Amino acid sequence: MDIAAVNALPYEDFVDILGNVVEKCPIVAAAVWSRRPFVSLTALEARINDFIDALPESGKEGILRCHPDLAGRDLQSGTLTRESCEEQARAGMDALNSAEASRVAWLNEEYKKRFGFPFVICARMNDKADILRQLSERNQNERAVERARGIEEVKKICHLRLQGLVLTDAPNKL
Amino acid sequence: MDIAAVNALPYEDFVDILGNVVEKCPIVAAAVWSRRPFVSLTALEARINDFIDALPESGKEGILRCHPDLAGRDLQSGTLTRESCEEQARAGMDALNSAEASRVAWLNEEYKKRFGFPFVICARMNDKADILRQLSERNQNERAVERARGIEEVKKICHLRLQGLVLTDAPNKL
Repeated sequence: MDIAAVNALPYEDFVDILGNVVEKCPIVAAAVWSRRPFVSLTALEARINDFIDALPESGKEGILRCHPDLAGRDLQSGTLTRESCEEQARAGMDALNSAEASRVAWLNEEYKKRFGFPFVICARMNDKADILRQLSERNQNERAVERARGIEEVKKICHLRLQGLVLTDAPNKL
Repeated sequence: MDIAAVNALPYEDFVDILGNVVEKCPIVAAAVWSRRPFVSLTALEARINDFIDALPESGKEGILRCHPDLAGRDLQSGTLTRESCEEQARAGMDALNSAEASRVAWLNEEYKKRFGFPFVICARMNDKADILRQLSERNQNERAVERARGIEEVKKICHLRLQGLVLTDAPNKL
């Protein structure tokens, strides 16, 4: 699907197709439909990021709280969204050994206790070792730093999900 | 569940239980969790309404676009949320005769074409005749009027869903 096809979608199809580019937050795509037509995929992504940035801090925390734990109960019970399931599997989160699994579960709980939202990371841009290291390191941050960092990760996840759905902009022809 | 029990919920349970008080917008409950503790159900509802009111107009339209059509394809295909299904059935939307069904389908399409979001009404506060009349009348409004009106209906739906989940505030004891 190219950007012209995206621009031609009625809102219902737009939300059906793009509603999970921000995990479990179809309101984001549904809001951004008001901004069409988009001159490019880059422009669509920019409008999504603008919408997220304009939310109050509680709204940004709300976005983070709509994300599942990495290697958490949704992965184990099979209730992850299709997108999250693929991303977590690709990063090896579905194949932790028991020591790793215990460590991740403990660090996730510590993180949530400390910040009141889950650890969010773009699993497709990190391998298992990176994720485990960052989960440990980011637990030491301040709350405001982690909120901003989590939102940056949300945008990276969104970037890759968009690229999986919409053809990237053709390079300028010479 | 009383408000003290609500205040004691970790965000995951809070979002699981209250995530659909605004249809398909768990971000709203997830954001409002940041505002706890709530002194009463009324205070919780006020924080939800504050969050909605603070959204840009595109965000309000986004909320409306997360709502299903009345007596629309989600009702027919059984893909309504549990809450919407009960509400639409109670208003008789699942038992329209064929003339009514055609009329509603046509008016829904006209409405969406005109406004770019669906007709939203608190079905539990209206009977079938009221709903059909308002669907026809509201089609004549200006877009900004209908956006505001739709959001008022979202808040009424939220009010009733909250009352179904949380014990209403005890009256002051004499």
